[in-house]
Amino acid sequence: MSTTTTTASPARSILLHPSGNPVGKPATPYLLNCWYAAALATELPTEGMLSRQLLDTGVLLYRTSSGQPVALHDRCPHRFVPLSMGQRHGDDVVCRYHALRFDCSGTCTHNPHGSGAIPAAARVRSFPLLERHGFVWIWMGDAPADATKLPDFSPLDVGPDTGIAFTYMPMKTHYELIIDNVMDLSHVDHVHGEIISTRGQLSPLVPPVKEENGTVSVRWQWQQQPAMLIFANFLPQPAEPARHFVEVTWHAPATIRLVIGATQDEAAPLALDSTTGQYDVHTCTPASEGHTHYWFATRRNHAVDDGEFNQMKIQAMHGAFVNEDGPIIEAVHREMGSSDFFALNPVLISSDVAPVRVRRLLARMMAAEGRYQ
Amino acid sequence: MSTTTTTASPARSILLHPSGNPVGKPATPYLLNCWYAAALATELPTEGMLSRQLLDTGVLLYRTSSGQPVALHDRCPHRFVPLSMGQRHGDDVVCRYHALRFDCSGTCTHNPHGSGAIPAAARVRSFPLLERHGFVWIWMGDAPADATKLPDFSPLDVGPDTGIAFTYMPMKTHYELIIDNVMDLSHVDHVHGEIISTRGQLSPLVPPVKEENGTVSVRWQWQQQPAMLIFANFLPQPAEPARHFVEVTWHAPATIRLVIGATQDEAAPLALDSTTGQYDVHTCTPASEGHTHYWFATRRNHAVDDGEFNQMKIQAMHGAFVNEDGPIIEAVHREMGSSDFFALNPVLISSDVAPVRVRRLLARMMAAEGRYQ
Amino acid sequence: MSTTTTTASPARSILLHPSGNPVGKPATPYLLNCWYAAALATELPTEGMLSRQLLDTGVLLYRTSSGQPVALHDRCPHRFVPLSMGQRHGDDVVCRYHALRFDCSGTCTHNPHGSGAIPAAARVRSFPLLERHGFVWIWMGDAPADATKLPDFSPLDVGPDTGIAFTYMPMKTHYELIIDNVMDLSHVDHVHGEIISTRGQLSPLVPPVKEENGTVSVRWQWQQQPAMLIFANFLPQPAEPARHFVEVTWHAPATIRLVIGATQDEAAPLALDSTTGQYDVHTCTPASEGHTHYWFATRRNHAVDDGEFNQMKIQAMHGAFVNEDGPIIEAVHREMGSSDFFALNPVLISSDVAPVRVRRLLARMMAAEGRYQ
Repeated sequence: MSTTTTTASPARSILLHPSGNPVGKPATPYLLNCWYAAALATELPTEGMLSRQLLDTGVLLYRTSSGQPVALHDRCPHRFVPLSMGQRHGDDVVCRYHALRFDCSGTCTHNPHGSGAIPAAARVRSFPLLERHGFVWIWMGDAPADATKLPDFSPLDVGPDTGIAFTYMPMKTHYELIIDNVMDLSHVDHVHGEIISTRGQLSPLVPPVKEENGTVSVRWQWQQQPAMLIFANFLPQPAEPARHFVEVTWHAPATIRLVIGATQDEAAPLALDSTTGQYDVHTCTPASEGHTHYWFATRRNHAVDDGEFNQMKIQAMHGAFVNEDGPIIEAVHREMGSSDFFALNPVLISSDVAPVRVRRLLARMMAAEGRYQ
Repeated sequence: MSTTTTTASPARSILLHPSGNPVGKPATPYLLNCWYAAALATELPTEGMLSRQLLDTGVLLYRTSSGQPVALHDRCPHRFVPLSMGQRHGDDVVCRYHALRFDCSGTCTHNPHGSGAIPAAARVRSFPLLERHGFVWIWMGDAPADATKLPDFSPLDVGPDTGIAFTYMPMKTHYELIIDNVMDLSHVDHVHGEIISTRGQLSPLVPPVKEENGTVSVRWQWQQQPAMLIFANFLPQPAEPARHFVEVTWHAPATIRLVIGATQDEAAPLALDSTTGQYDVHTCTPASEGHTHYWFATRRNHAVDDGEFNQMKIQAMHGAFVNEDGPIIEAVHREMGSSDFFALNPVLISSDVAPVRVRRLLARMMAAEGRYQ
Repeated sequence: MSTTTTTASPARSILLHPSGNPVGKPATPYLLNCWYAAALATELPTEGMLSRQLLDTGVLLYRTSSGQPVALHDRCPHRFVPLSMGQRHGDDVVCRYHALRFDCSGTCTHNPHGSGAIPAAARVRSFPLLERHGFVWIWMGDAPADATKLPDFSPLDVGPDTGIAFTYMPMKTHYELIIDNVMDLSHVDHVHGEIISTRGQLSPLVPPVKEENGTVSVRWQWQQQPAMLIFANFLPQPAEPARHFVEVTWHAPATIRLVIGATQDEAAPLALDSTTGQYDVHTCTPASEGHTHYWFATRRNHAVDDGEFNQMKIQAMHGAFVNEDGPIIEAVHREMGSSDFFALNPVLISSDVAPVRVRRLLARMMAAEGRYQ
């Protein structure tokens, strides 16, 4: 896995393969009937193929000549060669070993052996995809794909390309530890540098947590002087106090919307459209129980035409995740081994309310899917 | 493990330790009462020792001063030090730790400690060996070694040294995947380069498969223009069509004879002595379930005195196995994990008949040995 | 883990945290109610922290500003971050993730979150330590720490700093194989070089073994010419014969005192104070079942003021352990895998009496602690 930082324009939404794939109900530690990010829209090649492990399964990702994204199980059903070792043949894929050819629905279209008859079972599982908000989302469950289950992140889509950026960060940790980290922002003053310091204002707060419609939200509001440095220079009086808010909302299975802003206007509501702020999406997809794909998207409402600033900013945020959060979360994962979080009797404090609510809700959702034996 | 390419003359056949070793019946996933290749005859040192893992067991291999090959369990029975860490003492081996000395039958011949008495149990297991056809074959089973169970590959022995070559290729894969690969040659046009292309002639054939006397054979016959490039320049009209055959015969547990030839004589039978061709032996021995020793021997019936061509040819074949078959088979092994082949429901096609027959016959042989619980 | 060779003066003995820690009875393959070496006294930093795995547990080691050694479980009870990733705050430790602060008894002294209330459960386990004879000893059991269970190695403490040296050697092996190695010195002529050769005199001896008060001792006496080379130049007639003795005593769980000397005075008793000799302590602590911390301390009774010789000598001994014993013992560990020593049916010889007595006594002690299910 390589680490990439890209700025990209969100592609329009396309619903793919909404049903009809051969499915089985694997034993898995993951919630399955839901949308996971499979890739950034820009990661899918029109020529060539991308192979990525998602939920312990090798997935082959590419675009057809018309730009349609495709996801197939990266395994030939004949002798289990990863199809990513083979070649594209137009919009089809040819296996490297015996040249069986499959189209983008997973149907075998050519068998050069014997009479050329194609066995009925010669199908590769394909996965429904949705391309939205700059991401390609994948449905790996046994129930029919349900597009309404993808949350709406359309604020990402509104504005110039120089106001949005994406980054990808592979992490050697369980994905729930990444969710914990974003759902409890009380760590920011302790883990991160000056640039996003709240000057000790955030930790003492006991923020309200809201659980509704299968989401968990938590919201902090505070005043600090000067404002958070990522915003201060875009406010009228950079050195003066400003009111801030940050609101974080988790959507199953592993996507978090984070909205943050600051204002020096005493009459302004603490909301994105009346503050200097940004709209972020954190999403992660387990490759396995110990490796996670972590993506981050951010759209600003200030300096939106400054492409150089855009690039500098995403690189700084990428660096903070990789160099500051990452080592801690990866160490926690090593320390926990294969133990369950609650089984280790964590000593919980006030700032754990939101992440614990997420863990418990996710566990109930998995139980409802029958993922526990 | 290093990778070696050697040209070697076959040594004469010697029957060693035909019986009488201390034996136990290990739990093992391997057929045991049969001959596996332990090494090329040229690999065994007369001074020094070679340690090689065979069937999950460390085996110490060397030659006595009279050239007799020796195989001992590479473990001192006292405190389990690999004997290969020690030293030769004439035809004996001295343990590195406490200097217990063992002869080439595994009998302890010297104990420098206390009174010097040698405990009756101080024996190292030795394994029967047969040196034939340029290989040293080992019997690791609990039944008495049976020399008649080693197939006859004597065509390897007939001809000059410049007409035969051997190579060794360690592979990170289960040995049955290597057998599958050789028993189903329908992959050649898809996996390999121009040099052994059948111009698409081989894949469409449904070759007859024969199971007899505990072997499985499969035979293809076809015409192509030009001839397979490894033969074309040795035929009267290199650019013209030629009739070809290849016959592949598996012998338990893991040795395959492959005979291949081409002719432009319309009256010639498709057999080695009436075509331009070669006689090959593929043999593999599991080091463990995920690592396999793979050896290949080839004798030509043309240009037999050209040592330079001989060297070039074995290097090309070694390269094809290592760079073309190898990565595919190793990827399949990783993809399969520890799953049983049939349990993964492979979609079988016509070209799988021979390898599937081998897998089923081998399973029956293992069942007959009581290798399944 | 790095490998260090140091010469150090023994610090005075301090009894720490003799009781009162929160304890649990872990399932463990180790004897627990006893003292293991945790570190050399010189390894503990007064600023910063040392993290070391002991008995499968991460242990954080440091000294307070007054020099008192501290051992805490290297894991924050909140979200399981290793405390060693954090920072010292005077004599306290601050967690890297959410800045919970703990004092050297493991009590949480500061929580910057919410109201700042400290949960009653927010305690880190601390371990009793004893600093004696140049080592810091740790008690990881569930019973109250018992200082009387630490053997007396006070001869290490008497004499100048230039007469004593310490070294640390991490080994990839089970700790009992290191004990076996020191309890059976019959290997010295076979494993080691000229410098400590007994000229074949030691192996033929069947030394008396004594078990008393929970210790096992073995003693060899012999004459050789010339004397052992580490002593010969300090004797009146370096080339002439000398009488030697070596006495080795194991103390549970994994500490061995070795006293060795040589004399050319026919009337001298074979004891340290009447010979040219040295007093050594070998001690090892399992990091895990396959990795062991091994320390060695040695005090001479000759050339005690020669610091250069002292340095040269400890480097030579370190080299012998690491380059001569180490590879053998590590190979035995790999060869044994996870098998029990006796279950592999070792062929025992006369020199195994002492190590076998130790293994059996240790097993009885573990059974008495209820460490077997």
